[in-house]
Amino acid sequence: MNKNFSRPSGRQDDELRKITLTAGYARHAEGSCLAQFGNTHVLCTASLGDRVPPFLRNTGKGWVTAEYGMLPRATHQRTNREAAAGKQSGRTQEIQRLIGRSLRAITDLNALGERQIKIDCDVLQADGGTRTAAITGAWVALMGAVETLISIDAITKNPIQAQCAAISCGIIQQHALLDLDYDEDSTAEVDANFVLTDHDTIVEIQASAEVDPFPPSQLNEMLTLAQKGAKKLFAQQRTALAMLKS
Amino acid sequence: MNKNFSRPSGRQDDELRKITLTAGYARHAEGSCLAQFGNTHVLCTASLGDRVPPFLRNTGKGWVTAEYGMLPRATHQRTNREAAAGKQSGRTQEIQRLIGRSLRAITDLNALGERQIKIDCDVLQADGGTRTAAITGAWVALMGAVETLISIDAITKNPIQAQCAAISCGIIQQHALLDLDYDEDSTAEVDANFVLTDHDTIVEIQASAEVDPFPPSQLNEMLTLAQKGAKKLFAQQRTALAMLKS
Amino acid sequence: MNKNFSRPSGRQDDELRKITLTAGYARHAEGSCLAQFGNTHVLCTASLGDRVPPFLRNTGKGWVTAEYGMLPRATHQRTNREAAAGKQSGRTQEIQRLIGRSLRAITDLNALGERQIKIDCDVLQADGGTRTAAITGAWVALMGAVETLISIDAITKNPIQAQCAAISCGIIQQHALLDLDYDEDSTAEVDANFVLTDHDTIVEIQASAEVDPFPPSQLNEMLTLAQKGAKKLFAQQRTALAMLKS
Amino acid sequence: MNKNFSRPSGRQDDELRKITLTAGYARHAEGSCLAQFGNTHVLCTASLGDRVPPFLRNTGKGWVTAEYGMLPRATHQRTNREAAAGKQSGRTQEIQRLIGRSLRAITDLNALGERQIKIDCDVLQADGGTRTAAITGAWVALMGAVETLISIDAITKNPIQAQCAAISCGIIQQHALLDLDYDEDSTAEVDANFVLTDHDTIVEIQASAEVDPFPPSQLNEMLTLAQKGAKKLFAQQRTALAMLKS
Amino acid sequence: MNKNFSRPSGRQDDELRKITLTAGYARHAEGSCLAQFGNTHVLCTASLGDRVPPFLRNTGKGWVTAEYGMLPRATHQRTNREAAAGKQSGRTQEIQRLIGRSLRAITDLNALGERQIKIDCDVLQADGGTRTAAITGAWVALMGAVETLISIDAITKNPIQAQCAAISCGIIQQHALLDLDYDEDSTAEVDANFVLTDHDTIVEIQASAEVDPFPPSQLNEMLTLAQKGAKKLFAQQRTALAMLKS
Amino acid sequence: MNKNFSRPSGRQDDELRKITLTAGYARHAEGSCLAQFGNTHVLCTASLGDRVPPFLRNTGKGWVTAEYGMLPRATHQRTNREAAAGKQSGRTQEIQRLIGRSLRAITDLNALGERQIKIDCDVLQADGGTRTAAITGAWVALMGAVETLISIDAITKNPIQAQCAAISCGIIQQHALLDLDYDEDSTAEVDANFVLTDHDTIVEIQASAEVDPFPPSQLNEMLTLAQKGAKKLFAQQRTALAMLKS
Repeated sequence: MNKNFSRPSGRQDDELRKITLTAGYARHAEGSCLAQFGNTHVLCTASLGDRVPPFLRNTGKGWVTAEYGMLPRATHQRTNREAAAGKQSGRTQEIQRLIGRSLRAITDLNALGERQIKIDCDVLQADGGTRTAAITGAWVALMGAVETLISIDAITKNPIQAQCAAISCGIIQQHALLDLDYDEDSTAEVDANFVLTDHDTIVEIQASAEVDPFPPSQLNEMLTLAQKGAKKLFAQQRTALAMLKS
Repeated sequence: MNKNFSRPSGRQDDELRKITLTAGYARHAEGSCLAQFGNTHVLCTASLGDRVPPFLRNTGKGWVTAEYGMLPRATHQRTNREAAAGKQSGRTQEIQRLIGRSLRAITDLNALGERQIKIDCDVLQADGGTRTAAITGAWVALMGAVETLISIDAITKNPIQAQCAAISCGIIQQHALLDLDYDEDSTAEVDANFVLTDHDTIVEIQASAEVDPFPPSQLNEMLTLAQKGAKKLFAQQRTALAMLKS
Repeated sequence: MNKNFSRPSGRQDDELRKITLTAGYARHAEGSCLAQFGNTHVLCTASLGDRVPPFLRNTGKGWVTAEYGMLPRATHQRTNREAAAGKQSGRTQEIQRLIGRSLRAITDLNALGERQIKIDCDVLQADGGTRTAAITGAWVALMGAVETLISIDAITKNPIQAQCAAISCGIIQQHALLDLDYDEDSTAEVDANFVLTDHDTIVEIQASAEVDPFPPSQLNEMLTLAQKGAKKLFAQQRTALAMLKS
Repeated sequence: MNKNFSRPSGRQDDELRKITLTAGYARHAEGSCLAQFGNTHVLCTASLGDRVPPFLRNTGKGWVTAEYGMLPRATHQRTNREAAAGKQSGRTQEIQRLIGRSLRAITDLNALGERQIKIDCDVLQADGGTRTAAITGAWVALMGAVETLISIDAITKNPIQAQCAAISCGIIQQHALLDLDYDEDSTAEVDANFVLTDHDTIVEIQASAEVDPFPPSQLNEMLTLAQKGAKKLFAQQRTALAMLKS
Repeated sequence: MNKNFSRPSGRQDDELRKITLTAGYARHAEGSCLAQFGNTHVLCTASLGDRVPPFLRNTGKGWVTAEYGMLPRATHQRTNREAAAGKQSGRTQEIQRLIGRSLRAITDLNALGERQIKIDCDVLQADGGTRTAAITGAWVALMGAVETLISIDAITKNPIQAQCAAISCGIIQQHALLDLDYDEDSTAEVDANFVLTDHDTIVEIQASAEVDPFPPSQLNEMLTLAQKGAKKLFAQQRTALAMLKS
Repeated sequence: MNKNFSRPSGRQDDELRKITLTAGYARHAEGSCLAQFGNTHVLCTASLGDRVPPFLRNTGKGWVTAEYGMLPRATHQRTNREAAAGKQSGRTQEIQRLIGRSLRAITDLNALGERQIKIDCDVLQADGGTRTAAITGAWVALMGAVETLISIDAITKNPIQAQCAAISCGIIQQHALLDLDYDEDSTAEVDANFVLTDHDTIVEIQASAEVDPFPPSQLNEMLTLAQKGAKKLFAQQRTALAMLKS
């Protein structure tokens, strides 16, 4: 391992980018948050709806689901507009399934009641880590929508059982690094995403060898970094919600 | 005609909403502008590309085209994501064709050379008049891309032959009004969009009876209002570009 | 302006092509009309249906909508079949939206009752002006369907409040011309379509600079021509309906 | 078998409907024919093109292919427009594959040279037997296109090796009948289509039990009827081509 | 005709490939059969469902329908996966329509009651004659599903009125041959498929000239071969069902 | 934790289902393997092709990609055929992306040369763990294709750098279990998939809370189980390849 290694972004190995979470950013949505992880900006909204998916009708149980998109020129090079192409890419579907699954894991769907909260995460600007910014901001938007429900007496108990945030890690030249930006991500040997709760538990882990398979020890190094980073994200989520109310 | 009429928004009949054009808003695009017409916010980007449509290959002539989209929760009620639905609506296609046609009408495509500029107009927040904000901002984004071309000596002469901006008008209770917001638009009897140049010429006019067919005199009243409004938009476009350079 | 100008077709500037409207052309439809504007032939049918779009269910209000298509070899060069391509082009959608909007503007949807009339306009042969021939013929087909409704006592009052016809105009070498054929249309600097009523009102105007933006005076010249042309179309619509009854 | 049987249409069992083949019906196509079998009207066009399918490139061999469509209100009840539905039905694909296969079977594709003739068969009005009218008319359109090729010296030898026509037969109350119209077809126990040549050979036979499986003897009865009917169609094809030249 | 002709596969002209029908092959389906015609292997399953197509709702009548597919590498060269391409080919649709139609022709849909049996025929390995193996196996699967219905007392009378099997024939060098494999099929001048019942009746015949139109005598030669082959298939279907019960 | 816990399948916590890997199962493919994990049966084929994706053209580098599918009645209840639905589900895309990524991680794409190996994994019967059976079998199929390349001297060095196999783990009632079948999977609180190499390294880990977020200790328990299971899979992969050669 190279002792003189310094990461491309100049940050410390366990240093997050500048994180800003702006709750209530969108005018029309019941809950919303602009999540900025450095130059990655994701607008997350939560929309309340009455209709649940068919398999939940008349069960009294609710649902949380998510859709993800990226503006065509959010990226360095323009990417094709999925609406024009006529379908969502496999990557898009993978990400939106991850967001929905993560939020459901910390939601008491019975307590939510037979209604649906639809999360939209749209990347306005991309610089790596869009899915982790999306999940982190989506939790804030979800909380906003839940508070709307409480404020109109639609539900009495908050169905959100934990905070949920996500952060990426990677391995570059055998060093585990936190919160990779696009340049770092492109050269990483391993790429991992951690969705964690403020109860020190794991919602989802995805770790892939981009170049070479990696030893279990690196998985644990990355997990430790992620837990450290998530603590800071949880604090910022609380601050964002507090500012919304003030 | 009702003498005591006052328009729903409280504005004067010939008063624009607060307009803000922020050139250079997007980090990655060759040209960009965030166009805000009151609560309608449209992010316009211009992307340079080498490939022209097949019918222009080897002609030395360039092309300007546009795509339009709306975030699902840009609107009061969530609208379906077109990428998930698998196709762009007729309305979307109509708008993006209008944007492209308008910009081509003020561009010397021979002077542009055999390259394509792709404009993306994405509505982040909608409150009526998204297509007019899109065209007004798209012109600024287009200018940004053209200046990029000039700065790298790809072209020597600016192919943009005029300023181009758009504004909506409508008739409510027989009064012609400028720049309708969503509430006004929903009750308008006639809905019209004017794409104009700073040379006192017309690029495109679309006027539709929403409720009842209207007399030619109202068309002219609306055109007069639109010309007045466009003058202000041209001034703001120039200011936005000036601030970009400074 | 060139004093010696004569239009490509050899017609006078304000001269329509030979117009033939044959009501009742289609055997199965409740209303129909073959509209021939010179070599442009459009078959328009009106089909009665019980189901209205979801947003109108149980409102007692009806709907008129339209679809447009073109046989692949209606054109000089074969165009791709949209059914095979798997989607309707933006142009097709734009036109069918225009037809539907135009007919709704002259229909009292409450008087129609909760039913839908679906208009199909299919271009059998194309030589410019297909959308104006379509609207002009569609009005005749619509009247046929309405008369079917009256004849079976489904409604008592005719919900059609005015005649509606459409005609194109264009500017060639600074001359305003009426009812352009394909060859003229290809060289026109400005292309405009006017949907007018026999009450001297406007249903819809669309005017686009094909080459260069144009002065407001040309808009008015074209409107005057269109009003003149529409008068003749209204007379032919009445004749077509009269022959159907006789 | 019911001795007093008379077929629903009142025709003799071996009697065709009134057949009219109008060659050269379409203004723009290289070859065309309006085929009318009673109230079934199919417009067939043949379009010449330079590009052959990929598997034939640089083989010197040509191709003949076909597309089939139906106007939405060609039928008693309106059917959905395939272009709006976004796909061609299985029935449509089956028919257009049959038309293409039939024409290729009587064409010397080497003699045609590396070019493609695309046949479009569009049903303007339907009353049973649309596919047989389509094939019969398509052959005339194909001949028109081939004669265009000969007239411009693109080929010297006629690649069409035989006449090809199609006719339907059916079994109603155990009687074999020729050329069923829609009412007859709806009640037929067996439905068969025969594509035959003027050399007393078979290009394609499709016979299906609509209600009950049928004995081989009925297949032969129907084939005999079809051969009789085809003879008349071949004569009409020749007449149609002769009138085109005169 | 060549006296010394021997068919490519070395089989007698009227000799089937080795046929194996394994009823009950699929663990989860209500009825199933792996049909092997030499190296052509088709897995047929029958799934019971409560919902009938809209036009049969509340009629008390049932429905049998079929879908067909092929694994991408069932063939000598890989073929594209239809699910990835986003649509089923015309060939696929033609085959699945044939399978469904054939099974309905021998089923008393009233006796089936208002339920649907969905047949899936998936080609695991292809060597010619996949549609005939599919139909032959599908009948066994259908019987399995019907016996499931009887065993749970959902119906009392078997609605299957006859056995149904299919076999292909072809003409090579003017010789009629039974059950062509892929190599034979590729060189055949005529290709025919016969769907027959054990009551000596025909469900469906499709015969196409692949190269040259053929005389009626060859149709009859092929039909005779097919009847001979079908007899053996009926015996194997009975054996397969008997083994399932034992 | 419940001391008396016994897993639903009756297996030991670290016990795999009966695993059978049959190399060379498919007649036409360059490499193939039928992977059976208990009642889960996946047919994996590897197809050689000359064309690489556009971004690799003229780089001398190869590609490995995968597609995944499931027969409609592979499952307890019939699932819709994706080809008929017109698109692959998000789940399907997620799985096929995982398979491709996993195989590329152990392949030296430069050593493969500019060619593509396309893996198809089709589930013939499903009982949980289809993606892990798919990856395990796909590696065997890939090796078969590579050996074909070596046997024809297309490459000299084997580009496969490690064995790669996958296995699922889950948590039920706080017990970590290996290789869950469908019944177990439906009740698992946590669901994880491990793609591992015979070099004790990780290719990919995906672990999701199905019900409640889980502690890091459970991740490690599952990883230990997976490593144990993978050892057995590696042995079976070697045996399967050995039997193929013998």
